Amino acid sequence: MPKVGIVMGSDSDMKIMSKAADMLEKFGIDYEMTIISAHRMPDVFFDYAKSAEAKGFKVIIAGAGMAAHLPGMCAAIFPMPVIGIPMSGKNMDGMDALLSIVQMPPGIPVATVAVDGGANAAILAAKILATSDAEVLARLKDYSAEMKDTVQKKADKLSELGHKEYLKQM
Amino acid sequence: MPKVGIVMGSDSDMKIMSKAADMLEKFGIDYEMTIISAHRMPDVFFDYAKSAEAKGFKVIIAGAGMAAHLPGMCAAIFPMPVIGIPMSGKNMDGMDALLSIVQMPPGIPVATVAVDGGANAAILAAKILATSDAEVLARLKDYSAEMKDTVQKKADKLSELGHKEYLKQM
Amino acid sequence: MPKVGIVMGSDSDMKIMSKAADMLEKFGIDYEMTIISAHRMPDVFFDYAKSAEAKGFKVIIAGAGMAAHLPGMCAAIFPMPVIGIPMSGKNMDGMDALLSIVQMPPGIPVATVAVDGGANAAILAAKILATSDAEVLARLKDYSAEMKDTVQKKADKLSELGHKEYLKQM
Amino acid sequence: MPKVGIVMGSDSDMKIMSKAADMLEKFGIDYEMTIISAHRMPDVFFDYAKSAEAKGFKVIIAGAGMAAHLPGMCAAIFPMPVIGIPMSGKNMDGMDALLSIVQMPPGIPVATVAVDGGANAAILAAKILATSDAEVLARLKDYSAEMKDTVQKKADKLSELGHKEYLKQM
Amino acid sequence: MPKVGIVMGSDSDMKIMSKAADMLEKFGIDYEMTIISAHRMPDVFFDYAKSAEAKGFKVIIAGAGMAAHLPGMCAAIFPMPVIGIPMSGKNMDGMDALLSIVQMPPGIPVATVAVDGGANAAILAAKILATSDAEVLARLKDYSAEMKDTVQKKADKLSELGHKEYLKQM
Amino acid sequence: MPKVGIVMGSDSDMKIMSKAADMLEKFGIDYEMTIISAHRMPDVFFDYAKSAEAKGFKVIIAGAGMAAHLPGMCAAIFPMPVIGIPMSGKNMDGMDALLSIVQMPPGIPVATVAVDGGANAAILAAKILATSDAEVLARLKDYSAEMKDTVQKKADKLSELGHKEYLKQM
Amino acid sequence: MPKVGIVMGSDSDMKIMSKAADMLEKFGIDYEMTIISAHRMPDVFFDYAKSAEAKGFKVIIAGAGMAAHLPGMCAAIFPMPVIGIPMSGKNMDGMDALLSIVQMPPGIPVATVAVDGGANAAILAAKILATSDAEVLARLKDYSAEMKDTVQKKADKLSELGHKEYLKQM
Amino acid sequence: MPKVGIVMGSDSDMKIMSKAADMLEKFGIDYEMTIISAHRMPDVFFDYAKSAEAKGFKVIIAGAGMAAHLPGMCAAIFPMPVIGIPMSGKNMDGMDALLSIVQMPPGIPVATVAVDGGANAAILAAKILATSDAEVLARLKDYSAEMKDTVQKKADKLSELGHKEYLKQM
Repeated sequence: MPKVGIVMGSDSDMKIMSKAADMLEKFGIDYEMTIISAHRMPDVFFDYAKSAEAKGFKVIIAGAGMAAHLPGMCAAIFPMPVIGIPMSGKNMDGMDALLSIVQMPPGIPVATVAVDGGANAAILAAKILATSDAEVLARLKDYSAEMKDTVQKKADKLSELGHKEYLKQM
Repeated sequence: MPKVGIVMGSDSDMKIMSKAADMLEKFGIDYEMTIISAHRMPDVFFDYAKSAEAKGFKVIIAGAGMAAHLPGMCAAIFPMPVIGIPMSGKNMDGMDALLSIVQMPPGIPVATVAVDGGANAAILAAKILATSDAEVLARLKDYSAEMKDTVQKKADKLSELGHKEYLKQM
Repeated sequence: MPKVGIVMGSDSDMKIMSKAADMLEKFGIDYEMTIISAHRMPDVFFDYAKSAEAKGFKVIIAGAGMAAHLPGMCAAIFPMPVIGIPMSGKNMDGMDALLSIVQMPPGIPVATVAVDGGANAAILAAKILATSDAEVLARLKDYSAEMKDTVQKKADKLSELGHKEYLKQM
Repeated sequence: MPKVGIVMGSDSDMKIMSKAADMLEKFGIDYEMTIISAHRMPDVFFDYAKSAEAKGFKVIIAGAGMAAHLPGMCAAIFPMPVIGIPMSGKNMDGMDALLSIVQMPPGIPVATVAVDGGANAAILAAKILATSDAEVLARLKDYSAEMKDTVQKKADKLSELGHKEYLKQM
Repeated sequence: MPKVGIVMGSDSDMKIMSKAADMLEKFGIDYEMTIISAHRMPDVFFDYAKSAEAKGFKVIIAGAGMAAHLPGMCAAIFPMPVIGIPMSGKNMDGMDALLSIVQMPPGIPVATVAVDGGANAAILAAKILATSDAEVLARLKDYSAEMKDTVQKKADKLSELGHKEYLKQM
Repeated sequence: MPKVGIVMGSDSDMKIMSKAADMLEKFGIDYEMTIISAHRMPDVFFDYAKSAEAKGFKVIIAGAGMAAHLPGMCAAIFPMPVIGIPMSGKNMDGMDALLSIVQMPPGIPVATVAVDGGANAAILAAKILATSDAEVLARLKDYSAEMKDTVQKKADKLSELGHKEYLKQM
Repeated sequence: MPKVGIVMGSDSDMKIMSKAADMLEKFGIDYEMTIISAHRMPDVFFDYAKSAEAKGFKVIIAGAGMAAHLPGMCAAIFPMPVIGIPMSGKNMDGMDALLSIVQMPPGIPVATVAVDGGANAAILAAKILATSDAEVLARLKDYSAEMKDTVQKKADKLSELGHKEYLKQM
Repeated sequence: MPKVGIVMGSDSDMKIMSKAADMLEKFGIDYEMTIISAHRMPDVFFDYAKSAEAKGFKVIIAGAGMAAHLPGMCAAIFPMPVIGIPMSGKNMDGMDALLSIVQMPPGIPVATVAVDGGANAAILAAKILATSDAEVLARLKDYSAEMKDTVQKKADKLSELGHKEYLKQM
């Protein structure tokens, strides 16, 4: 039974949303991924949001661009956390989507991550599940160690090569 | 039978939305005005948007602030024009609401007016109805003449008094 | 007799404005499309805006970039709805054109759509005509169903292929 | 044992942060509230963030204005969710704090809510806890019903009084 | 015969536009000041702009707020310089008016000054006239000396009093 | 004796500034073009600005990007009009340069044109000279007619070809 | 012999600049404070900037609003650090001044602090002097301890009183 | 013993940070360059910032993008100047990083330079060291002369070739 629903408004968001899915897999978290436009299929959307709790979802990750209503409308119906990913789109560098997602009125929060922040949305979902799942918590700590290690190796490489050589190898 | 539905997400928008209602009255256009939060009562909202056509609405005027989803969600369901009014709110001078309303994705336009543009939303509704209602069209032309006259009187007054005296009387 | 006038300030807007024209054709709505710069040929512009009603126009779709005055000046003269399309241009992602079009003063609304929203402008024009034209209304409903269907097929494909394979095929 | 840590960078944020505390009380969730400046007392901050898990915190709510680093630095250390509240401050309407909080790099998400969104931060914390606490989930549903009821009563009042009278009573 | 036309779109701009008039008087430059809305009285506006050259105007100073089209439309018709003043208005600190005025397309420049820059518009008009009027040029130089003197006196006062006492006397 | 000085802060602005020079040539206006960085050679800059009047300059066109100080510093010294061109540069689409140029304090206006508005700066210079030069005025009117003609031809072509064919030929 | 020059473009900046002066006094650093407008008295400004090194200045703190050129022009002449303070002014919350100060072209940096950051400018000056002055370094460390202590006391008070009582006493 | 620490949050900043290193070499200033993510390795970061003074650093140059916390957190610990470089990143042209770095709260300044201003950060570091190092001061003056010379040569070339030929050779 998937614990996380991943939903995007359009398949133009697939590249970013896939990063969320890949990251959940890395944490061993089951998810269900779909495409639902709150604007183009409001009935389907309503059914999705209403049935999410019954399907066992604990978190919904919703990505959308421009006047991004999908995350906020999910949060209006689904009683557990909705994570919103603003998409950068063609114009405005995602500022339109960011404000459309983060500036939710009192009572209906959306947990907003950075523009195009697909991986971060999944990590946040994992952190949410980790509040009651020691295994996920342990994997998050491993992942933190891994990230630290990756940067440390780059620091070591820079120390070894110097920046001129490092730049050449990039 | 009201031809225009006026809907706002919160009664904090009442002052601006009332300007829309007052202007519709001026044009002799019947309207129905209500408060529905797409976020706080999505079911009520869906019923409203779905039954709007059957109630005889030709236009919906929807005002909302912050991550303003009400106009866009109306436009996702109601098949005729939805006019969106971005509210300025406490922060950001309405830029958040403006982008949340105007930047609708392909397929689902919202006819957006200026931030806090209550009167203009009603005038736009009248212009829409005027495409098939000669009487409303005539009233719009009268209103244009009236606006012109108002400015002309101010210009005459300025010409007569000079700006120093005009300023004093403001 | 065309019901919709499509006007752009420069042929650099042709690609976006053509989407409006194509969409009107899809809805079976007659239109007349032309290029008129309010700045470079104000007399021609005035004649155009003044004669638009007599030509039978019910709606004008006006697109312009930068300090986009064309939609607002149309709305100052033509008594029925003017739909404004802000063009993104070379700098500022269309924010200049958006504010120049949407922030109209009281009395003279422009029905503003998203930056580069050519198709949406036409759909909004169709929605306006649908307030008194049952056939256009029916076509709009068909179009909505079609949009829903398109997304649904993508959702089915995603469900079938999974996101990794879906991404590869994009 | 408190499940939520509320931390602010300065007591100038107290008014907004108190809304978070009050809302947690409403949901029956224990919290610990303190003032720690990541900039003015980095050692204290580090100890706080490092010991938060051991103290039993499941969520940290961190509010800060301007170059708001407190939420992001908490998220760098605390392995479970950090909710960030951007404060509007004296200039920039909170846009500086919003970008400083939401635009976190890959690996370290902060669950960002609206500018000055104190109550929403607490509701989001409750939603997070509700993923494993049926009682909190039930209270969230009650709260949703309550919000809906509040708006409905306003809608009824508007329907009864009309907007002119409603405005007078505001 | 007035050499400068001062025109504003609404008498809400009177306070700023009066600064322009007062400054022109200081430079001994004749002007004619009026209120014309390009949106509310396009015919009057067109006559004004077309007859401006025949009336002897060498410069037009045009102020407007929001989607400020007045300066740009003047520049489309009047062949000599048009100076545009963006008004700050209620929302957006004049950013909407600034972009609506300054971002003119190739061929039709507006000489834009700062938001609410009434005095600067008049000084710029004087500088323009000074290209062929030695007397105005001399007065501009006197004005520069005067400005320098004013600041110098403040500097001397600060040097004498110290900043603590200076602040108290402000 | 050149009547217009064209000055840029860096030769990275050459492409835009050349448009100004080319346009002045079109109007038969003599100019002198140079590169002076107010930041990198303040002494040279001061000499330039101070000697500009004696050299016969009636107008200075100054272009700069980023924190663009060159136009404003010219305006602080040269008593006749300074036209400022904000350059778009690598980041920020010229918003930094626009605000650095247009937002001049009271007393020291810069006649600001659009971002990257090289041609418009020259046309504005011509308009300024046209206040006392009938020949330049006549050329400006010819240029307006020419611009109108260019657009009219495009409109005719669109009318003849239709937008589908027009687009193909672009 | 003063080590820090404090200069502002207008006495409207006095309130913010006084915070810089007061903070320098706290650190026992001699300063000279004056008012010089780079725009209104460029000669005085040039003399000031050129003679600053000879007067013994090690740092200049320059504050200005709007198109803030004073810090950048100081940095073009004075060979040691110039600290720029953007002033918030009447419109735009200091965004114009911030970009005018921070976005300096390659070769001429200005050390920019927050909008209205008078105290921070002085602390930065002290940090600069502390690179070669152990006494100032010691005072900076004391000041850090003091700041930490202030926050700690507030935290203790909050812990003691609870947020409801704390708020009442604010 | 290196006098300047150069630190970046990610090796994606290497290209810009290398400009800082190259410029320091040009001034003969020893530096140590490393990669430390305040978010991904907070312990390493704390050790770095705390030991910086003992290592002999007089200045830290810190570059980061998005919600850039690295410079501000360095400034919270290191008692001497921290120079912050906002990185432009993929979206927002560095506006997020700029505000995250420059808008530091009272007490903890970061000397912020332009977006992507790698070279300027190093020049500012040199200027800081020049307050107590006559040799570095002399090199800064040489560098200023060199910059002036470079521009002068371009000006001479433009004077010789004219802009048309100059453009061709670019």
